[in-house]
Amino acid sequence: MSSYTITPLEGGLTNVNGFYCDAVNVGMRPDASQGDVAFIRSEILCDVSAVFTTNRFQAAPIKHYQRYPEGFQTDFVLINAKNANAMTGEKGIDDIDTIMSTLAKSIDVTNPIMSSTGVIGYRLPVDKITSALDKLDFHAKNSDAAARAIMTTDSFKKELACRVTLEDGTHFHIAAICKGAGMINPAMATMLCFIVTDADIPKADMDMLLQSGTEDSFNRISVDGDTSTNDTVMLLANRQSGVYNKAAFAEALNTMMFDLAMMILRDGEGANKVVAFEVKGAKSDAEAQKAATALSNSLLVKTALFGEDPNWGRIASTIGASGIECDDTKLTIHYDDLLIYSDDCRELDAAREEEAYRIMKQEAFAVRCDLGLGKGSYTAYGCDLSYEYVKINAEYRT
Amino acid sequence: MSSYTITPLEGGLTNVNGFYCDAVNVGMRPDASQGDVAFIRSEILCDVSAVFTTNRFQAAPIKHYQRYPEGFQTDFVLINAKNANAMTGEKGIDDIDTIMSTLAKSIDVTNPIMSSTGVIGYRLPVDKITSALDKLDFHAKNSDAAARAIMTTDSFKKELACRVTLEDGTHFHIAAICKGAGMINPAMATMLCFIVTDADIPKADMDMLLQSGTEDSFNRISVDGDTSTNDTVMLLANRQSGVYNKAAFAEALNTMMFDLAMMILRDGEGANKVVAFEVKGAKSDAEAQKAATALSNSLLVKTALFGEDPNWGRIASTIGASGIECDDTKLTIHYDDLLIYSDDCRELDAAREEEAYRIMKQEAFAVRCDLGLGKGSYTAYGCDLSYEYVKINAEYRT
Repeated sequence: MSSYTITPLEGGLTNVNGFYCDAVNVGMRPDASQGDVAFIRSEILCDVSAVFTTNRFQAAPIKHYQRYPEGFQTDFVLINAKNANAMTGEKGIDDIDTIMSTLAKSIDVTNPIMSSTGVIGYRLPVDKITSALDKLDFHAKNSDAAARAIMTTDSFKKELACRVTLEDGTHFHIAAICKGAGMINPAMATMLCFIVTDADIPKADMDMLLQSGTEDSFNRISVDGDTSTNDTVMLLANRQSGVYNKAAFAEALNTMMFDLAMMILRDGEGANKVVAFEVKGAKSDAEAQKAATALSNSLLVKTALFGEDPNWGRIASTIGASGIECDDTKLTIHYDDLLIYSDDCRELDAAREEEAYRIMKQEAFAVRCDLGLGKGSYTAYGCDLSYEYVKINAEYRT
Repeated sequence: MSSYTITPLEGGLTNVNGFYCDAVNVGMRPDASQGDVAFIRSEILCDVSAVFTTNRFQAAPIKHYQRYPEGFQTDFVLINAKNANAMTGEKGIDDIDTIMSTLAKSIDVTNPIMSSTGVIGYRLPVDKITSALDKLDFHAKNSDAAARAIMTTDSFKKELACRVTLEDGTHFHIAAICKGAGMINPAMATMLCFIVTDADIPKADMDMLLQSGTEDSFNRISVDGDTSTNDTVMLLANRQSGVYNKAAFAEALNTMMFDLAMMILRDGEGANKVVAFEVKGAKSDAEAQKAATALSNSLLVKTALFGEDPNWGRIASTIGASGIECDDTKLTIHYDDLLIYSDDCRELDAAREEEAYRIMKQEAFAVRCDLGLGKGSYTAYGCDLSYEYVKINAEYRT
């Protein structure tokens, strides 16, 4: 059994050898001090894995990506905020080609990828974007600027990095920038996540680990149950370290993706608290997932969380409505370790209500439901729904 | 072909021969001027049909009802607000038996039914309810009091009645009281609806027409996508008029149930507008239903409606995420009769945006989506999501 050490690092993408990144404001974002177009560039060709939205109306950049042949390599990703380039038809894809042709005049790129987030239904401001491409320094290492440039309603930048040191002292790096705050759903979300590594990872492992890592992180969080047209999780590997260990890489990647998912949830539009909905004792994992996901999406549960009301009735009612097998005489509900509901304990006494209220006031806590019927389990993560969510989303375009 | 006339009437349940109703405040509702326990009584035995919630945790009154043998007759329904008697176990059913035994000392009743709405997880205040039963005048005809007593977060009472006159001048009546404002979902809702008639309707027609009427009314509306433990639609027929015509009855019943459903939606917690989501051109009716229902439940669509933002991107994105077959080059979206999106018209010009904004400012309008793929169609009805919804549901128990 091999051992390894995972060390968190400051500085985001700049930790990974051979990658460059920066951002510029091309005039899509009113605040000129923050970029709206970012790039990630590798000095050598990378293998690339990606997980995209399940939305049937995939945005133009996703369709553009999918036109490359299976197993293609790339050395360049251009990312813009404020405009999703979604529902823009063939013209939306042509716009990307135009931008990339212009880019090729400034720098040699192979199979460049584009990624976009923002409002649906508007063509990209191609001229603005192309005219700003000369302003970018393609040898910069400015992860902070890139992480900030891809934000939309995010209130803080999401950037993580780590060094993975193997037993023999050799090491590799993994780093990521990520955005997302609303339109977040267990079937992915308006979120973009770019992960780069210098590990010597085989392409098959990249695909497999990115998919399973996504299942256990971004696919378990819900801000509002909506699934965007643009969701993308991408992993670029340039193999420059020459070092790899699958178990170490998997653990480091999974931890990073889970932490990023929790950052998104903590930054959920108008959200004040993160709640883990742990369901066990279901007939199957699929049934547990149905119940946990229903809880993380229920408006009545989310508003009760915001109101810090220890109203387990809404938890029970949501489980009952989720379409799974359940029995109120076998169900138990805990908030953290406090028993809130069981067949013998159907009414909260004042002391327990007081304690439940204390638990709910925390920034994070767990709602633990045991259906008492089988071995199926699943945990979904959600947040509360506040006035602020309504405000942000009622006024998004203005 | 027979003809008939349907005449709306004031006065609710009091129009139907042989039915009595009234309400009393037993101390569950702080405002003593409004009842919290109501009854509907028939002087002769009625056939009864009911449609109940699909929630697996059905409330005690529903379980109590289901213990009566198939095809049982009744002459009495007792209804309380403020307490759902849900998730209360066997004791919740025993409480109903206790109340009904006490009631039997005041008045002769056969197979009495109970129905409850309110907070989940508390035992009924049995003593309060039984001690108030003598105060009720079982020969009163006070539909207004009964309709008001069953309200929870409703801001107005919901009560309708009509006379159906056949070609030969004979007639019968249908009348209903109903409650519901939140926790409203296409799979029924926290809603109670009691319909009484003196039509000479066969039991088989009662069952069939109540079920199909529910499909086309209460099952098409969504306030928040949540499904309660207590939802009930009930039809009582005493046959006292001796008159019946199936087509006439069906039309009158369907119209009444649809109008009540729209009253619930208009009274949706914090809602300001009612929106019909008409989906056609889907591969099948089931796919159209999936898309229409997703639209009526989407938080991003609901907040855009509240913000009166003609953001068709959220409409398209929600359809794309609903899991049905769709194609952005074949899709068209209209707001009322205004084209908002088609393959040739992907960006709103200022004039059309202005017109869209004018349409969205109305109290009711239609979002019409044609998928252009087949003959499937379905219409779901929803409302906007405002700060007020969050406020009401964050503070519900207090």
